Amino acid sequence: MTSPWVNDSNAALLTDLYELTMLQSYFHEGMNSNAVFDLFVRRLPEQRNYLVACGLEHVLAYLKSLSFSPEAVSYLESLNRFSGEFLKSLADFRFTGDIYAVPEGTVVFANEPIIEVVAPLPQAQLIETFVLNQMQVATLAATKAARIVTAARGKPVIDFGVRRMHGADAAIKEPRAFHIAGVVATSNVLAGQLYGIPVAGTMAHSYIQAFEHELDAFRKFVTQFPEAILLVDTYDTAAGIRNVIELARELGPKFRVSGIRLDSGNIAQLAIEARRLLDFAGLNHLKIFASNSLDEYSIEELLNSGVPVDGFGVGGRMGVSSDAPMLDTAYKLVEYAGRATMKLSADKGSLPGRKQIFRGTHDTIGLVDEKVPGEPLLLKYMENGIRKIPPETLDTMRSRCYSELRKFGSADAGYPVELSPGLCELRAHTLDLIKEDKS
Amino acid sequence: MTSPWVNDSNAALLTDLYELTMLQSYFHEGMNSNAVFDLFVRRLPEQRNYLVACGLEHVLAYLKSLSFSPEAVSYLESLNRFSGEFLKSLADFRFTGDIYAVPEGTVVFANEPIIEVVAPLPQAQLIETFVLNQMQVATLAATKAARIVTAARGKPVIDFGVRRMHGADAAIKEPRAFHIAGVVATSNVLAGQLYGIPVAGTMAHSYIQAFEHELDAFRKFVTQFPEAILLVDTYDTAAGIRNVIELARELGPKFRVSGIRLDSGNIAQLAIEARRLLDFAGLNHLKIFASNSLDEYSIEELLNSGVPVDGFGVGGRMGVSSDAPMLDTAYKLVEYAGRATMKLSADKGSLPGRKQIFRGTHDTIGLVDEKVPGEPLLLKYMENGIRKIPPETLDTMRSRCYSELRKFGSADAGYPVELSPGLCELRAHTLDLIKEDKS
Repeated sequence: MTSPWVNDSNAALLTDLYELTMLQSYFHEGMNSNAVFDLFVRRLPEQRNYLVACGLEHVLAYLKSLSFSPEAVSYLESLNRFSGEFLKSLADFRFTGDIYAVPEGTVVFANEPIIEVVAPLPQAQLIETFVLNQMQVATLAATKAARIVTAARGKPVIDFGVRRMHGADAAIKEPRAFHIAGVVATSNVLAGQLYGIPVAGTMAHSYIQAFEHELDAFRKFVTQFPEAILLVDTYDTAAGIRNVIELARELGPKFRVSGIRLDSGNIAQLAIEARRLLDFAGLNHLKIFASNSLDEYSIEELLNSGVPVDGFGVGGRMGVSSDAPMLDTAYKLVEYAGRATMKLSADKGSLPGRKQIFRGTHDTIGLVDEKVPGEPLLLKYMENGIRKIPPETLDTMRSRCYSELRKFGSADAGYPVELSPGLCELRAHTLDLIKEDKS
Repeated sequence: MTSPWVNDSNAALLTDLYELTMLQSYFHEGMNSNAVFDLFVRRLPEQRNYLVACGLEHVLAYLKSLSFSPEAVSYLESLNRFSGEFLKSLADFRFTGDIYAVPEGTVVFANEPIIEVVAPLPQAQLIETFVLNQMQVATLAATKAARIVTAARGKPVIDFGVRRMHGADAAIKEPRAFHIAGVVATSNVLAGQLYGIPVAGTMAHSYIQAFEHELDAFRKFVTQFPEAILLVDTYDTAAGIRNVIELARELGPKFRVSGIRLDSGNIAQLAIEARRLLDFAGLNHLKIFASNSLDEYSIEELLNSGVPVDGFGVGGRMGVSSDAPMLDTAYKLVEYAGRATMKLSADKGSLPGRKQIFRGTHDTIGLVDEKVPGEPLLLKYMENGIRKIPPETLDTMRSRCYSELRKFGSADAGYPVELSPGLCELRAHTLDLIKEDKS
């Protein structure tokens, strides 16, 4: 028995059952006109004042390969709730719509459409679940990483979080998002292979423990990896540092160790003590890396106190975005067959109509064909199911994100986002029509 | 360009780089003796007083298929940090060790080994990252779901969380964990197909919006799905309920709708009002389902106030275990080549030696060959890389979890876990040896 994996051939079923029941109803009602859905975040988490949009490439790849395998259709048939005609129609299901989106690495705010889907209603409906799943985890990860990288003030941040991320797909897609947001490397070798992200790492406590003496473990490790970063806190941090100094004495000019890693206890105290001991031994060039449950809050505290740490290995708190592990993402129908639509549910309303984000001295969410000052952020990535804008390199997205964070990364009070006159008018008009229907 | 996926042929690289650098050192030092690693949770999150162990099946499947593809080795070669001899040895890498574990669905506590790996050091070392990644997400999910199911007091809980889970792998593995913990169904069709979990769902707001009139949307949906649950809060909840009542009048005896769903606003008030309206219209048999950002806290509050809700659709808060999105999992070397080992790092120490959990009137963590009262929880699932205990059905695991939760699910104050005399002695002895080395 092998454990199952998600892949291109079964991803069409990675959807909520209700998408398929709605599709059957659309099928039998002949409702195949163009629908427009907006993907946006309703409210930012309290702990966030911006988001870094990420995950688009995964969505485009999914849309390109989207289809129902014979096995998928057989499974649906076995549920005894779908009509034969509808199931038969799934064999030809493909995505033939248009995708507008902000480029990955762009900073966005609440209510701004990150993706706008324009496609025949059944297609735009079915993809909801997968698109939300992939966009949320990547945007969550890029945003958390952007905060951590900003807090680290240019000192390198390395991703050590794979063991605490939620599952294997997050474990490859988060390091990509982190890298776009400025994280320099990941410990996850597979993410390195699949996306060309630099990989990095030091050594584990188990390595030290596998030897009878810590100094012996250090000696053996550097015979293979002379420029290693040595982990000094397995038993007693001060004693561990003395063992590094002893190794330097033993090896003389052959000693090429780059640094030490502190992974427990009071990092501030230990780093100051480590720096003192290393400098006293003439090892001023050895760097000090820290890695114990770090996040933007603890990194800022360390750097504010002038603690001599040269780099950060950040694990689970970045890997699960621990202070805000989900976003209030929504994927809402804003137009069907040329008629603007909106939802009025308490605290969960939506804005009608096809949109554009205009970025100038502030952001304006406007209608797609409205004249509004500012640069339009939504670009047409796909037309009739065919990709229009070629994939970017990670470095291009990193550069974009870097300049975005210089503009928006320290906006403590949030950033002004307005609705255009045209959008306000359409909202009022749509509301009137809905109220008329109720009265 | 297709987006990459994790699968059996590349999962060997889903590991931290340091595992591979340590492996090269072990390789050149000839360190191939048996190592014992314990996977456990150091401290429970503040919001948890037990854990439901889950994820073992994914680990066993991975160990069975674990190997390095030629592409994986080529990638490692391209990093220019591994020796040719070591890379060559990876072609023959297989897992040939023993796995002891508690069955999935068992309740466990802090410091209790959930999995104990006994294998040649390089094998036991390499698998650390993947095993932690898979066990954490499943255990986190099963534990959160167990709390929610307990709070729901026998009323059905359905998983609606796939869109907010972190990535596609979590999206199939969490519904399995939820089901083991007592969740009756999932909205994720793919999880339904892959694991045989019941699937369920209602309708989305976009379906209602795609029609010009809400009542028309209800009419059309029930022609396809007569026993549907209708979503009533798209525009105005009371008006939505009146439309359901109108539909009942229209259809007369053909009206077979099972219930309504409330997804916004003040669920307590709306459910009471909905019940009143439905009962007044003679629709006493229609059930009321709620689904707005629910978790164990809000469900308990609703039921404590006697709110007439008949079932719960639970989304993101269960899907990301929002109040405790990660566990303090550890995978620690406890024995190498017959020598007990431990780690002393501040707040992150470990217990030496091969262990067993003995469960009686309380739990005792003891040495594997020690005579301690109680039932042993760790079973031998794999011997020399060959599986010994066949896979269980989900229903078997569900039954186990159900009786475990009756015993442990309400233990507010936590549950007593003691260390055996033998383990205390081994710890003291191992500590002495380490201190001797330092002095």
